[in-house]
This record gives sequence, structure tokens and C-alpha cells, in this order.
Amino acid sequence: MVAEPLTSPSTLDDDPIFALHRGGKMAVTLTAPLTDRDDLSMAYTPGVAQVCRAIAAEPSLFDSYTWATRAVAVVTDGTAVLGLGDIGPQAAMPVMEGKAVLFKRFGGVDAVPLCLATSDPDEIVAAVKAVAPSFGGINLEDISAPRCFDIEERLTAELDIPVFHDDQHGTAIVVLAALRGASRLTNRSLDSLRIVIAGAGAAGVAVARILLAAGAHHVVVTDSKGILHTSRPDLNPVKAALAEDTNPDGMEGELSDALAGADVFLGLSGGTVPEEDVARMAPGAYIFAMANPDPEIQPDIAYRYASVVATGRSDYPNQINNVLAFPGVFRGALACRASRITEAMKLAAAEALAGLVADELRPDYIIPSVFDERVGPAVAAAVAAAARAEGVARA
Amino acid sequence: MVAEPLTSPSTLDDDPIFALHRGGKMAVTLTAPLTDRDDLSMAYTPGVAQVCRAIAAEPSLFDSYTWATRAVAVVTDGTAVLGLGDIGPQAAMPVMEGKAVLFKRFGGVDAVPLCLATSDPDEIVAAVKAVAPSFGGINLEDISAPRCFDIEERLTAELDIPVFHDDQHGTAIVVLAALRGASRLTNRSLDSLRIVIAGAGAAGVAVARILLAAGAHHVVVTDSKGILHTSRPDLNPVKAALAEDTNPDGMEGELSDALAGADVFLGLSGGTVPEEDVARMAPGAYIFAMANPDPEIQPDIAYRYASVVATGRSDYPNQINNVLAFPGVFRGALACRASRITEAMKLAAAEALAGLVADELRPDYIIPSVFDERVGPAVAAAVAAAARAEGVARA
Repeated sequence: MVAEPLTSPSTLDDDPIFALHRGGKMAVTLTAPLTDRDDLSMAYTPGVAQVCRAIAAEPSLFDSYTWATRAVAVVTDGTAVLGLGDIGPQAAMPVMEGKAVLFKRFGGVDAVPLCLATSDPDEIVAAVKAVAPSFGGINLEDISAPRCFDIEERLTAELDIPVFHDDQHGTAIVVLAALRGASRLTNRSLDSLRIVIAGAGAAGVAVARILLAAGAHHVVVTDSKGILHTSRPDLNPVKAALAEDTNPDGMEGELSDALAGADVFLGLSGGTVPEEDVARMAPGAYIFAMANPDPEIQPDIAYRYASVVATGRSDYPNQINNVLAFPGVFRGALACRASRITEAMKLAAAEALAGLVADELRPDYIIPSVFDERVGPAVAAAVAAAARAEGVARA
Repeated sequence: MVAEPLTSPSTLDDDPIFALHRGGKMAVTLTAPLTDRDDLSMAYTPGVAQVCRAIAAEPSLFDSYTWATRAVAVVTDGTAVLGLGDIGPQAAMPVMEGKAVLFKRFGGVDAVPLCLATSDPDEIVAAVKAVAPSFGGINLEDISAPRCFDIEERLTAELDIPVFHDDQHGTAIVVLAALRGASRLTNRSLDSLRIVIAGAGAAGVAVARILLAAGAHHVVVTDSKGILHTSRPDLNPVKAALAEDTNPDGMEGELSDALAGADVFLGLSGGTVPEEDVARMAPGAYIFAMANPDPEIQPDIAYRYASVVATGRSDYPNQINNVLAFPGVFRGALACRASRITEAMKLAAAEALAGLVADELRPDYIIPSVFDERVGPAVAAAVAAAARAEGVARA
């Protein structure tokens, strides 16, 4: 149809990964054909004016007659991309497109990557608020801590559509689900477990928060300087608040001190844990070493000491992968036109995930596969039901 | 795949127009399937990190390995939507989605509607600049004059991707092409024609500018208060500048005065012209009455006095429709990675359009049909060639 191709091959394309990414991974399509003047006059002028007039007169019709309430913006500033760090908005685009295709494939949700030219929180908030009428939800992605906490909080307060920082809450939902699976498998209760979270960035903070909300009592969080405790003078406000709410025994010291006698290791840091520290954990421990591509504790070592092992990798059992959560979470939130995503909706998502494997639990199967087609619908249904129960649903 | 549909039918859907618009008119699709763990590990982590790293090291690879340089943002604040006026960003969405599907259907360009929550020019400029890294071009749409001129000018100056206000330049390109067709058909030259433009909004101003750039000499523009001339004290800066550059005889008065002896009427106003004023035009006039759905001069009246008649409607011959221009203009600009859209590129687009009908001109065929599949490629090729000739192409 068109004169000139928009991209041409390069030698990089000899690598199948680059070949797959050539020209991007997503496209826009029409939901109805435009083959003649009648089609055109219905989809565009003059017919479209009727639909615009109807929405102007009755704003709730926006939900039914636009794509917007099915569409999610995947918003980043490119400051904390995968394990790559602050690579900027354009180098982050392949990840955001990847997220968008996962949204579609696993949740039937249309997502659009918006990589922002600014990392200033005020400007990010202003830009997202400006484009918000075009979307049914906002998925924040790969924005570095602690700015991500403030940005999410402000947008949640100021917008009437769901705002969800996936690095925090997607991870938190899937970790909680996996921990439910492991504890059911081994007949232990969440509140009895001594849990150590290595990492106090976006994911570590959110995991700690959801575990506390789900009933965990013994949670200790570490950052690169050691255990978070209330006497540490170097904590930012988010970590300081977390120190208040965790570490009930007032433990001080390093990660290795925290691991002594611990039942659960949750690795969200990217560091490496020496085997002698792993050996100090309580018998029958659970080790979720989620750094990618290099787990904090290699699985072969972890299996020597733990009853259940999970990683972030697809080539080991029990993959802790956010794609188990975010597509269904947004699908459910959009389906009921939720105004926000509450703690109860996140907990419901985790319970739905855990429920899918409850009858078949094994040490190498505490969480569903990402290709389990039941996942998206189950999470979506649970999230929508929780939203309705909480009164944040509008449809 | 998913638990709960995102929209459900309503009685409005008994109307086929509403039924067509239900759930919106566009969707996101994957360009490659995601069926197993290998696909996932190439499209997303860990494989995607290689592509991100490559772009971070060599930013020009962004062009080849993302969808962004194929993607256009369709940006509006909803202040001047069709003939409906200031209906706001959400009621404008059906039009912007329509624009996006026209981009795809007629130019192979992926477009995303961004309806903004603000009509403040500074905030619009800031929002567009913030999202700009995600797109290969910006199509401004249905933003009211005179704010649209300032917004386009600032964005063009501050961004290194094409910014194009379609209500101005798309209209201007197609009007010029149609005028070329009419003048070739009747063996007259553009510089000899006495041209009256009714309307000094976005379209009227841009049409006047492109006609002057193309060699027209006798152009008179009117607004709701009459002919633009340099003695009028009530003109905004854009109209004042236009008064300087048009109306060489210093004519004053109403539209009816301007029409006396005029060769061309270009209706871009939405008003109605009385038949007695039409009768004052010179013999063999051209009447392009482009208001939609109600032309300023009804075709049956226009044919009594004119040798060539065009409208904005699909149910009459010679439809002046922007879709003849914007898909190909952006396709061409994206294909060569133009940093902006210059006057020469717009003129080239108009010449390409006019060229497609040059050998078959008839009074009812001075411009190609919107379904002429040659249009997009021809416009794109001409625009890319002009961009290369001007040195604004980067590929």
C-alpha cells in the first residue's frame, strides 16, 4: 500500500532477538474494516459526530463508545529499567513495548508505551494527568525509588482511574501468592514465618507491605547497608516508615544476621548471598531468589538448604513473574471501571493466583505457569469482585 | 481468554453508527506470537535487555528496533472538534480514534489518540514534549485557533520530530491540489486567479499561506466581521500578519464585496453564502464549499454559477478530504526520519496529489478519490523526496 518501508534490515538482525524486535513488537489495528464511503462516513465524519455529541451530553457513554476505557498507558522515565538502571526513555522503549504485548496476550488489554522525556516527579505527574482522559488506567514502570512512591501516591490521589506501579505491586502480588503456595504445601501459617526481604527498593517495599497486610508478623527488610531498623539515621522517609512497621525484634546488623534462623528469603536486591549465610537459615526454609538473570542464591545451592525454591527465571520451576498479575489486575479493574486499585484488590489477586494451584501443590509447583490460560480470567474476576465489594467499581 | 467482557450492548447500538463505535474502533496487536517460554524470553526478559543495551549504546538503533518511529500521537484538547466546537477531550475521543484508523488504513501508520485534560497552551506544549520520545511524529488535531498556531510553532521549534496540525496543513495541501486540478482543467494559472477564502481559523489561515507559497497573488480572506485588511483594529496577530500578506488591493467590506468578480470561493467557515452573492462571482468560477455537513453554498446552487464545484462531503464529486494528505505526509516523513515538515514537503504533497489526476481531469474529477490506493504511496514518496532535498531527512 505504501511507497517506502519504514525499516530495513541490518546485520544485527542475524541475532534472532534483534530480528524479533525489528520495527517494534506492536501495531495498531482497526476493529472494523474501512472499505467504502459508507464505512468512512460511519467511522469518521459525518457519522462520528453523533457519537461525540452523545458523549458530550452523557459523559458515561465514553466508557462504551471509545477504546480508552480498555486502554492502559505504560509510563516510564527509563530510570530503573530491568537490571540496566537509568538508560533513559528511548532505550527503555523495547521493555515498554514488551509490557504492552504482555498486557494484550495475557489480559486482552490494549496498552500504549509512553516513555517520558523527563524524570522530574512534578513533570511526570503533570504529563500523566494531561494524558489521563485517553486511558482507563496507568501502569507505572521502571521508575526508580524513592521517586516512584511519591509519583504513584500523587497520581492515585489526583486521578479517578487506576494507577499501579507494577514493579511494586505486581511483584508483591505474585510473591504473596507463591508464599501462600509454599506455606500451604508445608502446612505453615504466614504469621508464623520469619521472613527476610533483601532489597528495599520499589519491589522490596511493596512486598513487605503486602505481606504485612496479609498477616505476616516477622518481616525484616535489608538494603545495601544492612537491616532496616528504627535507629538508623540514613533512611529515606519510605524506608523509615517501613522500619517502624517491620523488624519487631529490633534486629540490627547485616543480611547475614537477619538470615540466622529465618524461614523465608525473598531476594529483590540483585546482590549475591554467600552459601554460609544460606546455611544459617532455619530447616525447611523457602528461598525465592528473584534477581534476573542471576538469582541472589543459585538454585543448586538453594536446594541444599530449602524445602521450596523459586526464582525469576523461566528456565527453573516456580517462576515469580509479574505477568501472572498485571494483565489480570488491569483487566479486572477496567471491566468494572474501578476508580483505583486498593489493597483488597491486590490481596484478592494474590489469593486467586494461589487458588489455581491449591489442589496440586508440589515443591516445584507453588505458583501457576505464565502460560496457564486460567490465570488472567481468575485474577480479573477476583479483582473486579473485590473492587465491587469495596465500592470503588463504577460498572 | 478473559473472564469479563469490557463493554456490553446498549439500546443505542440499534443505530449502526453506535454499534460500529462500541468499544472503540482500534486495538493494539502483537507483531509476533507469544506462545511459549522461548518467545517470552526473547520478546521480554531476559532477551529484551540486549536490545535496550544496544539502543543505550547507539541511540540511532531506536529507529529500527522500536515501534516508536512508526507511531504518531494524535493530540487534541477537544476545543474545536468537527463542527461541534469545544466538547472537551473525552467527547473528542471518537474523532481521534477515527483519525488513528485512517492513519493506519490509508498510510500504514500506527497512531495513538491522546486527548488532553488541559487546554492551556503551556501545559499542552509540556505534555507533548514529555511524551515525544515515544513517537515518530505529532499530529495536532481540533485545537482551536489562535492557540493552535502558537502551540504548533513552539512544538516545531522544540522537538526534532514532525509536528503537523492537520486542520491547517492537511486541509491546505488538499485544497491546493484541488485548485491545481481545476486550474489545469480550465487552462488558467494560479497567479491569475482572484481567490476568496471565507474563514480565518486554522484552515483558512493555512490555506491562504500555502496558496501564497504556491504562487497565488490575489488572495482575500474574510472572517465573521468581513474582509481582513491592514486597517482593521480587531485582528489577532495571526490575522494581522495575514492581512499584510493578502488583499493586495486593500479591499474592505463584507464577504459579498469580496466575491464580486472573484474566480474562486474557498469555504472554510461554516456559514451560508446567499445565492445573490454567488451570482456576483466571475464567469467560470470555482466553488469549493467545504463546510460539513452543510456546505456554505449548496452544490445545486453552486453549479448554476461555477465551472468546478467541490465540497467536503463524500456524497458529491470532488471531495476535499484531509485523508488524502495526512496519512501519506506522515508515512513519508517517518520513512525518511524527517525532523520536521517543511513548506516544500507540503507543496510536494499537493503536487503529488494533483499529479495523480492530471491526465484524466474532468469537472467532477479534479482530485483523487480517498479510496484511490495510489494516493498514500504517491504522497509519501513526494514528501520523503522533498525532505531529503531540503536536508531535513535523517534516513
